[in-house]
Amino acid sequence: MIRRRNLLGAGLLGIGGAAASFGSPDHAANLAAPAISRNRRRLNMVTTWPKGLPGLGRAAERVAERILAMSEGLIEVKVYAAGELVPAFESFDAVANGSADMYHGAEYYWTAKSTAYPFFTAVPFGMTAQEIMGWIDFGGGQALWDELSAGFGIKPLQGANTGHQMGGWFRREINSLDDLVGLQMRIPGQGGDVLRALGGSAKSLPGGEIYQALQTGNIDATEWVGPWNDYSLGFYREAPYYYGPGFHEPGASLAVGINLKLWESLTAGEQALIKAACESVNHLSLGEFTYQNSVYLDLLVREHGVQLRSFPDEVVAAMAEAARDVRAASGRDGLEKRIYESFEDALKKMAGWAAVSDGPFYAARALGRRTGS
Amino acid sequence: MIRRRNLLGAGLLGIGGAAASFGSPDHAANLAAPAISRNRRRLNMVTTWPKGLPGLGRAAERVAERILAMSEGLIEVKVYAAGELVPAFESFDAVANGSADMYHGAEYYWTAKSTAYPFFTAVPFGMTAQEIMGWIDFGGGQALWDELSAGFGIKPLQGANTGHQMGGWFRREINSLDDLVGLQMRIPGQGGDVLRALGGSAKSLPGGEIYQALQTGNIDATEWVGPWNDYSLGFYREAPYYYGPGFHEPGASLAVGINLKLWESLTAGEQALIKAACESVNHLSLGEFTYQNSVYLDLLVREHGVQLRSFPDEVVAAMAEAARDVRAASGRDGLEKRIYESFEDALKKMAGWAAVSDGPFYAARALGRRTGS
Repeated sequence: MIRRRNLLGAGLLGIGGAAASFGSPDHAANLAAPAISRNRRRLNMVTTWPKGLPGLGRAAERVAERILAMSEGLIEVKVYAAGELVPAFESFDAVANGSADMYHGAEYYWTAKSTAYPFFTAVPFGMTAQEIMGWIDFGGGQALWDELSAGFGIKPLQGANTGHQMGGWFRREINSLDDLVGLQMRIPGQGGDVLRALGGSAKSLPGGEIYQALQTGNIDATEWVGPWNDYSLGFYREAPYYYGPGFHEPGASLAVGINLKLWESLTAGEQALIKAACESVNHLSLGEFTYQNSVYLDLLVREHGVQLRSFPDEVVAAMAEAARDVRAASGRDGLEKRIYESFEDALKKMAGWAAVSDGPFYAARALGRRTGS
Repeated sequence: MIRRRNLLGAGLLGIGGAAASFGSPDHAANLAAPAISRNRRRLNMVTTWPKGLPGLGRAAERVAERILAMSEGLIEVKVYAAGELVPAFESFDAVANGSADMYHGAEYYWTAKSTAYPFFTAVPFGMTAQEIMGWIDFGGGQALWDELSAGFGIKPLQGANTGHQMGGWFRREINSLDDLVGLQMRIPGQGGDVLRALGGSAKSLPGGEIYQALQTGNIDATEWVGPWNDYSLGFYREAPYYYGPGFHEPGASLAVGINLKLWESLTAGEQALIKAACESVNHLSLGEFTYQNSVYLDLLVREHGVQLRSFPDEVVAAMAEAARDVRAASGRDGLEKRIYESFEDALKKMAGWAAVSDGPFYAARALGRRTGS
């Protein structure tokens, strides 16, 4: 806490002291005019993403760029890739204890802090991108998330969404449930628990460590995101069978976590600006993943010999059954139970709506394309 | 143009003259500090939405609220419902000629200006919400849209998305293609052209005029948005058969149009702020429609005796075929052709991605719910 107070002091500069960097003639001319004074802030953001990663890494940078542009340069957020300030999986603790101001990452990486965190990223057979946006912003999710993260001194916001995530890259085809037994796979969150329930072995590795684990045979398979992000990490070179759809992350929401004392020290305008920056990046990222995944899926299949496969019906049915149990096991008591129940209630409603809207629309459109009608 | 210049003069006040309204002790104390001067602006926004309409009307208000909060009160946008300043369908001309600063509306209302406008809202068997976001922001759509609207003196931005729109409310069931012949229906944009191709009669009416047309028998059927917005306009009292999925607007994007001279007069920071406000509202609205549609679908069916129906296969197939022709007819030459081709190219790619991701995911999840597995 003492450390935090020191950082807050460093992060918040009097505008007078910082005005020199805005010493262009235009700005100098304006200094004499009466104006509404705003604070100048320098904040840092650690991330769980490898340096230069498109999509997720870019989303973190976009949050920073938007905050800078909208504040006319007054709020500067410096973004660090995984490992630059702290290792990927220490981002949460860094923000909680105040050694970093913000993180951009996936909440299910913090399952050891609370088994409810995966509900705010993605859970097996759970919500699609627009559904989790609906639950968090309008179905009671944000209040529960605030309560959960406040316990660790963090204010959470949605900061990107990958849309649908593929089922993963496999060295060998999955033709039956037997093929999952003993499988060593990188798959974090509740998806990992589903694999364990079906006899496999699940590991959680940050993005930057997956390729080597696959190459050295430490894992037999991995999921990551979708065609676009997966292409950039090169998994197709090691494991040619690409399974879709995936069922473990139907629309992964990524988060911005902000040190709570810092958040509470911001003006209402600064909070609104940071929140809108995160929301606007969430909007952008969902469109970007949807478009780029379509481009890179085509590229992977046509130019890199990737073999598209879908999981056999018996595997899907077993995953769905295990998923129900895994979700329930993550919300047995207290706040975790309230989060689980809120999520399931909203999921039930929105799955009902999807079943008369997007679901049959996609099916009919795909049918029309196959038959050419 | 003279009128515009006058308005610009009125909209842009020196901060000195406006400071009195910020005369709280805190702000007064800050006036002495050197600060980056920002302009104070008062803008008006006309809309195509009835007063108090949830969802779409609220989206326009949210854009204004976010701009106000993020600018710390410096940019004030006053929102007018349809008919308060100008009738709904005159919003475009009002912004083009500078008698209004911005509009919030559906681009397909401007089909008489260009047959390409519907591509920026929704077209039959076209893109879902996340797909149109992908095309506009990453597939070349925004540049084409900018070019199209610049011809009318307008800068366009995405400002809300309704997600999937239902097929509409019908007094009598649609059991075959014959039931569409002679049908009088409120359905704007290319969806209306599809109905015309199948022998029906399509009308474009603003939301505020639909209920009366249905009640007086001027129309036999209407589509509007989805369960949430439709509930608020009470169509279920006149036409009990509710058809879903719809195929004419798989994810309708609503737009903010800004007078181009005004837009170009803004600072980069002001532009960034307005753009992020629109994007953040787009994010919010998609989640809100997804959640609220699920709540109101349930309400309509359980408490208002609404009968859910889906179009017969022969009707879906005929609509899909007509839709292809209607889309092509909207993009025969010049800029319209370039927009059509860009849209179709992106649609083909993204439909391919959906066919291995969201499409089969929704189908498998719905199957699991039906069988309880």
